[in-house]
Formats: sequence, C-alpha cells, structure tokens
Amino acid sequence: MSIDITKVLGYQFKPVETRYTERDVSLYALSIGAAADPLDRDELKFVYELNGAGFFAFPTFPMIFPFPMMWQILDVPGLEFNPMLLLHGEQMMVLRRPLPPSTTLTTHAHISQVYDKGSGALIVLDISTVDAQGEEVAFNQLSAFIRGLGGFGGERGPSGSAHTPPERPPDVVLAQATQPNQALYYRLASGDGNPLHADPQMAAIGGYDRPILHGLCTLGFAARAVLKTFGGNDPARFQSIRARFSQPVFPGETVITEMWDEGDGRVLFRARIQERGGVVAITNAAVELK
Amino acid sequence: MSIDITKVLGYQFKPVETRYTERDVSLYALSIGAAADPLDRDELKFVYELNGAGFFAFPTFPMIFPFPMMWQILDVPGLEFNPMLLLHGEQMMVLRRPLPPSTTLTTHAHISQVYDKGSGALIVLDISTVDAQGEEVAFNQLSAFIRGLGGFGGERGPSGSAHTPPERPPDVVLAQATQPNQALYYRLASGDGNPLHADPQMAAIGGYDRPILHGLCTLGFAARAVLKTFGGNDPARFQSIRARFSQPVFPGETVITEMWDEGDGRVLFRARIQERGGVVAITNAAVELK
Repeated sequence: MSIDITKVLGYQFKPVETRYTERDVSLYALSIGAAADPLDRDELKFVYELNGAGFFAFPTFPMIFPFPMMWQILDVPGLEFNPMLLLHGEQMMVLRRPLPPSTTLTTHAHISQVYDKGSGALIVLDISTVDAQGEEVAFNQLSAFIRGLGGFGGERGPSGSAHTPPERPPDVVLAQATQPNQALYYRLASGDGNPLHADPQMAAIGGYDRPILHGLCTLGFAARAVLKTFGGNDPARFQSIRARFSQPVFPGETVITEMWDEGDGRVLFRARIQERGGVVAITNAAVELK
Repeated sequence: MSIDITKVLGYQFKPVETRYTERDVSLYALSIGAAADPLDRDELKFVYELNGAGFFAFPTFPMIFPFPMMWQILDVPGLEFNPMLLLHGEQMMVLRRPLPPSTTLTTHAHISQVYDKGSGALIVLDISTVDAQGEEVAFNQLSAFIRGLGGFGGERGPSGSAHTPPERPPDVVLAQATQPNQALYYRLASGDGNPLHADPQMAAIGGYDRPILHGLCTLGFAARAVLKTFGGNDPARFQSIRARFSQPVFPGETVITEMWDEGDGRVLFRARIQERGGVVAITNAAVELK
C-alpha cells in the first residue's frame, strides 16, 4: 500500500470503446430495478425495444461506460493498494445530449485530483464520453476512496457539500426492493466485474460478511424514483446527477429514496436502507431536471 | 389463419450462428433463477466467470439457441396465423458434449411433423446445433401449438406419454420464487423477444390479463431444482430434458417442482404454481442424468 502523488496525478487511462445495443440498454434498466411491476407500463420504455410509446436508454446509463477501463487503476504507476479496500466515494454525471438506443461511443479518463482524507486516499477521475463526431455525450466524475492509504501528506480537499438535504421532512418518499441477486445482474449489465460484488470470500477480504451492491446500482434505483416523481418519467428532462456513497447496501435490501423539490428542476435526495434502521447509503445527492 | 401441410412439412429454416460469451452464459443462468441466495455459493459456478471452483454454462443453455431464428415461422409458405396465438407445447433437449464458457455454434432447424389436434395445429421442429467442426453439441425438439388452427384434416399424432408422473407422492419438492420482471430478464437472456412476454396489450390479444413467463424459463427453474437435488449440481452429469407446457406461468409466481427418482439417473418431474392452487404448469417431464 503506497501512493506517489506526483506520478498518480494527471494519469491518463487508455480510452475504451463502448458499443451498446438495445439489449444492453434494457439490461441496464432492469438491473437498476425498472419495470419491476409487470402491470405498470410506464417503465417499459426503458426495457422493451418494441414498446409502442418509444424506447429510450435510462439517462444514467452513461455512468457505466468507464467501468471496462476501471481495472487500469491497478496499473497506475506510483499507486499500490489492495483492490478489495477500494470503495466508490462519489459520482457525478452530466448528460450532454440524448442517448441513441444503440451506438458506439468512446470514453476518455484521467486522474484529476488526489486527496488525503487521513483514513484513506480519495482519487478523482474526470471521464468524458464522446460520439463518432467527437461531441461529448456525457461527462462523469468519479471519486474512489482507498481505505488505509491516507496520511501521505496530501491536501485534504473540499469537505461539506452544497447538496446536503434540508432540515424539513422530505416532500416524497419512495421504497423499492432490490433482489438478492441484484448485484449479479448489475455486474453483467454494467461491466463492473469487481469480485467484491459477487464472491463472498472476496467480500470477506473487504470486511463484509456478504457481497455488497454496486453504489451505482443503488444510485440507479434512486434516480428512477426521482425521474418518476418529479420528471414525469421523461428521459429528455434529465440533465445531471450527483451523489455520495456513505454506507454499503446489501443485495435484497429495500432502498428508501427521500426527495426534496428545491424548485427550478433541482431535486435533492437521500437513500436509506429500511432493513438496517434507515441507515443512510446515499447522501449529498441531487438531480437537475429540465 | 390457414395451413397447407404439404408446403409446411419439411420446411428448412435459415441456419443461425450463436456467438456467446461468459456474460451470456451468466445472464441465462440468472434469468432462470440461479444464485438467488447470495450466501449459497453452489450456483456461483453458473453466474460468475471468475469463480474459483470453475465456471460452467448451465446445461439447458442450448435450449435458447434456436430462438433468434424462430421469427422465421412467420415466413413459412402455407402457414398463416396470429403469432399471439402460438404457444410453446413441448420441448426436448439432448446435450451431446460439454458447453465451453464461450464459443461460436451454428443451429439448423426444419419442420419435422405437423399434427392436427382439433383445437389447434402442433408444429414440431427438429433442431441441431453444431460446433465449428460440425459435431453436434445439442439436439432440440420443439413443439409449437397454434390455437385455432386445427381441423385441417391432418394426423392427430401421439397422445399420452411415457413420462407421466407416478401415483406415489414426490420424493422431493422444491419451491422457487420467480420475480415480477423475470420474463423481461429472460427475453434478453434467451433472445426470445415475443411481445407476449413483455407487452400487456399483446398479452391481452393472446387472451391473458398480463404478460406470461416463457415456458423455457419455468423449465429452467425446474431443471435447476432437479440438477441440484439429484445431480449434485454437476453440469457434467446432465444428459437430456423433456417437458410439456400445460398452463402458462405469470412472472412473480412461485414454481413448485415435484420430483420422482426413477433410478438409473432418470428423474421425472412436474411444476405446479403455488399461488393458483397448485395448477400444473409443466408435466410429462423428465431429466436423464449420468
């Protein structure tokens, strides 16, 4: 376990190509819980390519594009760590243009910030996904927290957030069940094959008594709740999302999304876990809608 | 709605190539309910390509290979019908050799029998899947029942079955829950995109108040129960499977697999639906194990 910030900062990942089809689009939406009720037709548009009212990628779909390149973090010069101690810290995504139901895109990423949080290192990736014309389709910023890698004398970085939930009770609360094999579906849908989400032995090395759900899977459930509640379930109204992952979620638990309408299309939200006394799994989270 | 048996019999489908990866293998197994319990590691071998104890295609996987060619039944000269009235009648599959975790195979099919059942026509397809060396990997026989297309004066065909469950109580009974969006996952996993399994409007045309589960999905749940109970969950012991689909299953229902050990590796089974008073969804069914 060691980090040499002079080598790590600015490190460019090898770009990856994402070629997706309607099948990938549908599988992603199902893996974040879409269309769980077969009589509610409102989410068929995200999971059924023959849907009469149209077929659309759920707008958080571009969050998964960087994952086929994520293993490259193990090859960054000046960075040595146990991958089971890496946690997804924060995620931010801006959707720049509508997503076609199938296409080929290219994703570029580099390490833009490294912070010393004391208990660990926070590595920030800036990630840009472009189409064949080089136009940006989506921008992601991902923070990876590596436990036990702090204390190297780096900057602590920003704390607090402009996205803290208000004091007043949430305007809307929506509970959604995840399935016990949700993470196994999500890893196929997302390309995030980290064993922490599938293999009980590897999860134990990470300090968990069972595999944990991907943070972006939980965030997908919450994003669906927000778009449904405040965006008329219209993917064209989605602009951006951001969130901090504060506690792991276990597959099979129930995600309770608490939402606050802040006006002008800004929705703050938080995700709690019903089975564990409402522990907060996602916080400092916001969606901007058109 | 019409049928001209002289044209239909012997009709050759255009062959299709199946190129599958570990992801397809895993998605198929998940879509038939594998690894629903994240602490039961015994089915990780079917859904997790990095599994320490090996990774294997669940042995009923070749049942899905013909589905990308199934739309061709709408193009058979001498056969006109409403596709929403087509039901999967029976299925038989013999596994000839072990399935690699990823490979490219080719599937050939022709209409080998046409029977007049009075209330409908039974169309039998013989389907052979071969590897790059032309060796048969799996043989499927599929019967499609087209409601309302009987009475054309054809042979009635065989009735009864050598696979009727015995009078005695089952030796083992196993209940498994399906999920409300099971059919949406299964259609992506299998390539069987029939709208009957996804679109409530199309299901209504077929006479159902909601989309129904694919017969082969239910059969996959039952096959898992048999292999786990009598085959030590070892895919190498699987030889063949056959079944008749007697009633539709709705996604979200609980499949109760009743099993009878007939000795010499022969297991008879039946699937009932818990939520509808134990109605029989699969009957005349058998698995042969090594």
